[in-house]
Amino acid sequence: MTTKDKPRVSVIGLGSMGYGMAQSLARVGFPVTGYDARPEVVEKFAAEHGTGAASLAEAAADAEIIVLVVVNADQTQQVLLGEGGLLGSAKPDAVIVSCATMAPERARALAGLVAASGRHYVDAPISGGAVRAAEGALTMLVSGPPAALDRARPVLDALSAKLYLLGDEAGIGASFKIVNQLLAGVHIAAASEAIVFAKRLGLDIDRVYEVITASAGNSWMFENRIPHVLEGDYTPRSAVEIFTKDLGIIADISRSEKFATPIASSALQMFLMTAAAGMGKDDDASVARLYAQIAGIELPGSPNSPTKD
Amino acid sequence: MTTKDKPRVSVIGLGSMGYGMAQSLARVGFPVTGYDARPEVVEKFAAEHGTGAASLAEAAADAEIIVLVVVNADQTQQVLLGEGGLLGSAKPDAVIVSCATMAPERARALAGLVAASGRHYVDAPISGGAVRAAEGALTMLVSGPPAALDRARPVLDALSAKLYLLGDEAGIGASFKIVNQLLAGVHIAAASEAIVFAKRLGLDIDRVYEVITASAGNSWMFENRIPHVLEGDYTPRSAVEIFTKDLGIIADISRSEKFATPIASSALQMFLMTAAAGMGKDDDASVARLYAQIAGIELPGSPNSPTKD
Repeated sequence: MTTKDKPRVSVIGLGSMGYGMAQSLARVGFPVTGYDARPEVVEKFAAEHGTGAASLAEAAADAEIIVLVVVNADQTQQVLLGEGGLLGSAKPDAVIVSCATMAPERARALAGLVAASGRHYVDAPISGGAVRAAEGALTMLVSGPPAALDRARPVLDALSAKLYLLGDEAGIGASFKIVNQLLAGVHIAAASEAIVFAKRLGLDIDRVYEVITASAGNSWMFENRIPHVLEGDYTPRSAVEIFTKDLGIIADISRSEKFATPIASSALQMFLMTAAAGMGKDDDASVARLYAQIAGIELPGSPNSPTKD
Repeated sequence: MTTKDKPRVSVIGLGSMGYGMAQSLARVGFPVTGYDARPEVVEKFAAEHGTGAASLAEAAADAEIIVLVVVNADQTQQVLLGEGGLLGSAKPDAVIVSCATMAPERARALAGLVAASGRHYVDAPISGGAVRAAEGALTMLVSGPPAALDRARPVLDALSAKLYLLGDEAGIGASFKIVNQLLAGVHIAAASEAIVFAKRLGLDIDRVYEVITASAGNSWMFENRIPHVLEGDYTPRSAVEIFTKDLGIIADISRSEKFATPIASSALQMFLMTAAAGMGKDDDASVARLYAQIAGIELPGSPNSPTKD
């Protein structure tokens, strides 16, 4: 596919994920328009990578594919259906690629509204963090009608290193993502509990990291997050509030589906306590700081206080 | 080291781990005596691999190194100090290599009793399962006085693929093991919760396994145990009761040290419920069967009933 053949893409939401994704699309030759509620971010994107839009309507005007990289279901709905929203301005057959993590039921409802307007909805939650977003190397958990997937495919390919096509309707991608988040959230909380427990037992926690990452107690999250604790660096790579949100979605589903999730529920409480202690915007490994603070244990880079208010 | 130079070793406890370990030592030329409370297992070992002993005293008589592969601290103490125990019969300078998972405090206390008798105690919890035990490819988390470690070293090397020497007193190896078990137990419970939750959401759980093992939600335990669920095979590779025991040790330490472990505590409750439902001797992935049973969800190989009473 030459640049000339590439569909015009708009990316809505130029946060740490969206900016990198828009950048990845521009780098491989897609004509990309970026929109964000913060004009200075739009200007930066326009100066460095593509075209900026001053409104959702302007972003939607010529786009074949519109990628939504906002925080949650409510923001996604607002961008689609709120005042000046995309469903009032997008081309009649535009494909909406929706990346926020949300309850499967919300994804299905939004897909229904988009389809009723004549446009097409692709359920496409992402994982991998800001660095991979900027490299076009995300994991994408995608579902949607085959015709819409076909049209979005070049964009999905450009954004991902691992692209999973999981089914022909919205909600399936969202379901896979939420199962991943259940595990990821529990593993971060467990890693935090274990490393501070190890410190309480008097162990050298650098050595604990070495031993556990080579043992049956390892997890992707233990291996990835515990270095933040060992370095005492809680600059948010992914914030505590992402998991109060995502484990909160699981808690909602748990009640609505009458399916008990006691382990995820315990993990949610630890993220909520960490946020309550003022660390909601800090790195999610801050759960370890909460355990340390409660038990009066010193971790590297103490004091055990929030990075910011 | 030639066979002639190798120290005489006795292995006490020829269960699924101990039998394989004794076999591994015999294979590389150690003169090995095996003892177990079940005479038929001792006979089998004597016929296939080494020498059998009819009592602890007989096993201890000529041994330089005595490897204890029993279930817990109480059994270890009984073998050492109970009627006919090793401290009444072992050579004056024998090295006791103790492999059971136990509270660090118990390991320190036993080490003190062994040292008071003139013998030497090596704290050497193991991990890796029966297959690796028989291959001499365990992970060993070892601590103890340097002179005792030096003497035990050829035996430890023959038993392990990964040998961690973690400190110069008993209790450190035990502490590392217990931190690993905290994570391992939580990860099994979380994997069980997540895979049945995924099924409740209507997902293809084989596909969930494929996606999660390539994603940030992965853990060593998810990757290793969920195939048992997918195959509906709950033949015990490692039993539910191992984790009611090991997470129980963590619950004890949690109270005695005043260090809250809410995630491990939730996981312990799930293992206890699984044992209470009659699956204590089944594979630890049976926690998934409990979730399924509670929610009326069918997993592969259902009905969701214990393998045995």
